[in-house]
Amino acid sequence: MRENVFVSDYARLVNREIRLPKKVRIFDTTLRDGDQTPGVSFTPDQKILIARQLDRLGVDVIEAGTPVSSEGERRAVTAIAKSGLKAEICALARPVKEDIDTAIGCGVDCIHVFISTSDIHLKHALKMSREQVMKQAVKFVEYVKGHGVKVEFSAMDATRTELGFLREIYKAVVEAGADRINVPDTIGAITPRGMFYLISQLKPHIKVPISVHCHDDLGLAVANSLAAVEAGAEQVQVTVNGLGERAGNASLEEVVMALKTLYGVKVRVRTKLLTETSDLVERLTGIYVSPNKAIVGDNAFAHVSGIHAHGVIEFPGTYEPFSPELVGHHRRLALGKLTGRHSVEKQLRSIGVRPNKRQLLEITRRVKALGDKGKQVTDADLRVIAESVIGALPKEEKVVELKEVTVTTGSTITPTASVRLSIRGEDRVSSATGVGPVDSAIAAIRAAMGEISKLRLKKYHLDAITGGSDALAEVTVELEDDRGNIYIAKGVREDVVLASVEAMVNGINRYFAGRK
Amino acid sequence: MRENVFVSDYARLVNREIRLPKKVRIFDTTLRDGDQTPGVSFTPDQKILIARQLDRLGVDVIEAGTPVSSEGERRAVTAIAKSGLKAEICALARPVKEDIDTAIGCGVDCIHVFISTSDIHLKHALKMSREQVMKQAVKFVEYVKGHGVKVEFSAMDATRTELGFLREIYKAVVEAGADRINVPDTIGAITPRGMFYLISQLKPHIKVPISVHCHDDLGLAVANSLAAVEAGAEQVQVTVNGLGERAGNASLEEVVMALKTLYGVKVRVRTKLLTETSDLVERLTGIYVSPNKAIVGDNAFAHVSGIHAHGVIEFPGTYEPFSPELVGHHRRLALGKLTGRHSVEKQLRSIGVRPNKRQLLEITRRVKALGDKGKQVTDADLRVIAESVIGALPKEEKVVELKEVTVTTGSTITPTASVRLSIRGEDRVSSATGVGPVDSAIAAIRAAMGEISKLRLKKYHLDAITGGSDALAEVTVELEDDRGNIYIAKGVREDVVLASVEAMVNGINRYFAGRK
Repeated sequence: MRENVFVSDYARLVNREIRLPKKVRIFDTTLRDGDQTPGVSFTPDQKILIARQLDRLGVDVIEAGTPVSSEGERRAVTAIAKSGLKAEICALARPVKEDIDTAIGCGVDCIHVFISTSDIHLKHALKMSREQVMKQAVKFVEYVKGHGVKVEFSAMDATRTELGFLREIYKAVVEAGADRINVPDTIGAITPRGMFYLISQLKPHIKVPISVHCHDDLGLAVANSLAAVEAGAEQVQVTVNGLGERAGNASLEEVVMALKTLYGVKVRVRTKLLTETSDLVERLTGIYVSPNKAIVGDNAFAHVSGIHAHGVIEFPGTYEPFSPELVGHHRRLALGKLTGRHSVEKQLRSIGVRPNKRQLLEITRRVKALGDKGKQVTDADLRVIAESVIGALPKEEKVVELKEVTVTTGSTITPTASVRLSIRGEDRVSSATGVGPVDSAIAAIRAAMGEISKLRLKKYHLDAITGGSDALAEVTVELEDDRGNIYIAKGVREDVVLASVEAMVNGINRYFAGRK
Repeated sequence: MRENVFVSDYARLVNREIRLPKKVRIFDTTLRDGDQTPGVSFTPDQKILIARQLDRLGVDVIEAGTPVSSEGERRAVTAIAKSGLKAEICALARPVKEDIDTAIGCGVDCIHVFISTSDIHLKHALKMSREQVMKQAVKFVEYVKGHGVKVEFSAMDATRTELGFLREIYKAVVEAGADRINVPDTIGAITPRGMFYLISQLKPHIKVPISVHCHDDLGLAVANSLAAVEAGAEQVQVTVNGLGERAGNASLEEVVMALKTLYGVKVRVRTKLLTETSDLVERLTGIYVSPNKAIVGDNAFAHVSGIHAHGVIEFPGTYEPFSPELVGHHRRLALGKLTGRHSVEKQLRSIGVRPNKRQLLEITRRVKALGDKGKQVTDADLRVIAESVIGALPKEEKVVELKEVTVTTGSTITPTASVRLSIRGEDRVSSATGVGPVDSAIAAIRAAMGEISKLRLKKYHLDAITGGSDALAEVTVELEDDRGNIYIAKGVREDVVLASVEAMVNGINRYFAGRK
């Protein structure tokens, strides 16, 4: 992994001061803590799908759920435990007979037993004394081990637990047979320096591997996890896309790439599958990944400023810590007001246009002017600009033109649309109904095209809209012809219906352009 | 700020090992590096709006843009420099006469001069020697100072620059008059430990304040910024929502809250305005903030699992590092398959239902069953369940009922909607136009409500739709009354217009319910 990695030498230099473990295990809890993300509620089928993907990805442990919490959870955890995956399958349980019996009944390899240990939790939530907590923890660790199942023990809210008691309870559960202990920063309220200290204080007293589980309430989950590894933790609990309660957990993709590139520590994960795993989880949860999310966000390898884009064109290591291919992502140059002529030239070449120097400078000036108006400049915009500067470009013929579309919908009427298209200069009118205004408009276009196009609407995607109800709607359609070719097109309007219609018409034109 | 803050004692304990600055300055670069976010291109008007908000928020420096890059940039930076804000106004410039003259011409307080210093940038991007870089930097720092303007100097890609040369160039520019030096981790490729080392190595040699600028390519921007402060940096460069090139910069809200709560360092920012600042920037950029984003994400203070929700009901500090009010956010309990009966009971009470114990257990069981089907359980769902378990509930009076809505849109007509509402049993009909079908429908509802409700549509969010054009549209609206209370409501339909209308009507009813 040293190849195509261009990180800071200082990161590696200071790693000599510490004793890093050779290998770190990845314990994925997307299906347990990630399932506690507000708005997420995995069905058993979704859980099985994600577990399979995590296994392909190569995580060491999959925490599949909390079996006692519902009937569906029980079914899902059982199915995952029985599906013959390579990863160790784990289930969460309180040190309570019902929880543990249910978890054992699912046939898991390991039970993650947890109980709060901080005074603030003991007083306000558990209403138990330290002695009671200790006794219950030890009793049920022994109980699980008596059934021949592995135990990972978590002292919930460990980072707010008094050190003496924390050491004592960890030592007691290890004595009782716990195979690993986990140190959760349950509310995400420690610093990397604090975490390094805490793990260093525990390490000499604990004979089994130490795991860490960090929350991101102050944006430090990944750094705190890495600090624990610096102090000797051999396992990190993570979730895909950093899902989890509140601000979520340490993100799998960030922890894995940091361990590999910044620490040179071995991790079993196949990094090339990181982006597709993130996409799958985003799709199934509906929890949108911000474009500026590290590693897997849409913009993670996109370059805007002229200086950056120019550098990356010359040599990617100038403005990327590692190549996007390493994580199954791709590089992108975006044009706008901050664009330099190198990016414009590169983009023009990709659409077959070779301007001279004077033309290039003028096109660049116009791209910036468009950027000033708040626009990102698309290939289509660039083509129009280039055309007006250079003169006629190789012509992009529009087979289909939208003359007119009208849509009516309401609570007491059937959504209905009519369209008038000009197809190779010949007018066609058609109408259709649908489940909503967009659906009916698209149906009307398809009706007007009739036999001419065998295009299937493979995917319709409307970007999330936030702002006022007058924000721009951006629609992307994927059309597929009878030979399996894919045509992707966009429409952007304030009106979601018109944006959808525009995207369809653009896609159909792209199809005809491709057939010439 | 100690009040309502419940962080780990270990974080504070280890801070005694280091010498923290008493106060850290916040240098906001949302309008410069944030403007380099792919997909973002602020217009001059948007820049002025955001600058005003940042000034209200209390940041120390506002980097307003890169004046040389376009005509609009020049106008925007000039307008901000002249608008009499308290913050220092700064502009970015290469050490090139044209860049600097343009920046000076805008009337800014400070010029942020930058040039690459790493060998990888010198070789592949700049194609200059170290001597040339040094000479050019010093020459233009002197040039700026000659015009009586402050200078902050950045050695671009500092974290990949050889230490000897880095010290040398920083010393030389300070000698030449630079007022601050900035240490950028340009490609986000260092660890907190590495950053602490680097700043510690620079600190004794630099007589002016040290600033730091971190990118988030490996998810470490916030932690690296904090590590620099631990080593003596007195200023941090940040952006709202962590915007910026690629994976973006250190997020303002995370850095500020970490400095205040985990380090007890003074920061001038009024934290209560953090969430509204994030909302404003999200709305103007269209760059969606993930629900699980720390501090300002929709879920940052939302609790799902039964244990967590129960704890928070008893005492918020059990599962929150600080109160949401401190950052202008709010707490939320979500119901689903992981819900315990405490949350169900609390939620039932909030809708006026008081079940006995047997009923409560049965309602909880049904909530979990619905969760197993992949559903988050809304108040309306809960009401239906409770009704079927307990029998008739005290009637939920709907002040507003939608009787009829009709919307027409098209390419050649103005989107128009009519609605018939029953308001406390009295029919009202109204119509309106808008930029699209959704906008016109919402305008029509607002017209029909007239003076009755003083509700403002604060946020409209349509979840991304992927699938067919007949997939479900989920709309969330946030309404605000004249006393600043927030009402969040949803609508889910196959028809995006009807989903929007439903969300609005639900929100209005929630407002009336709250006033009883």
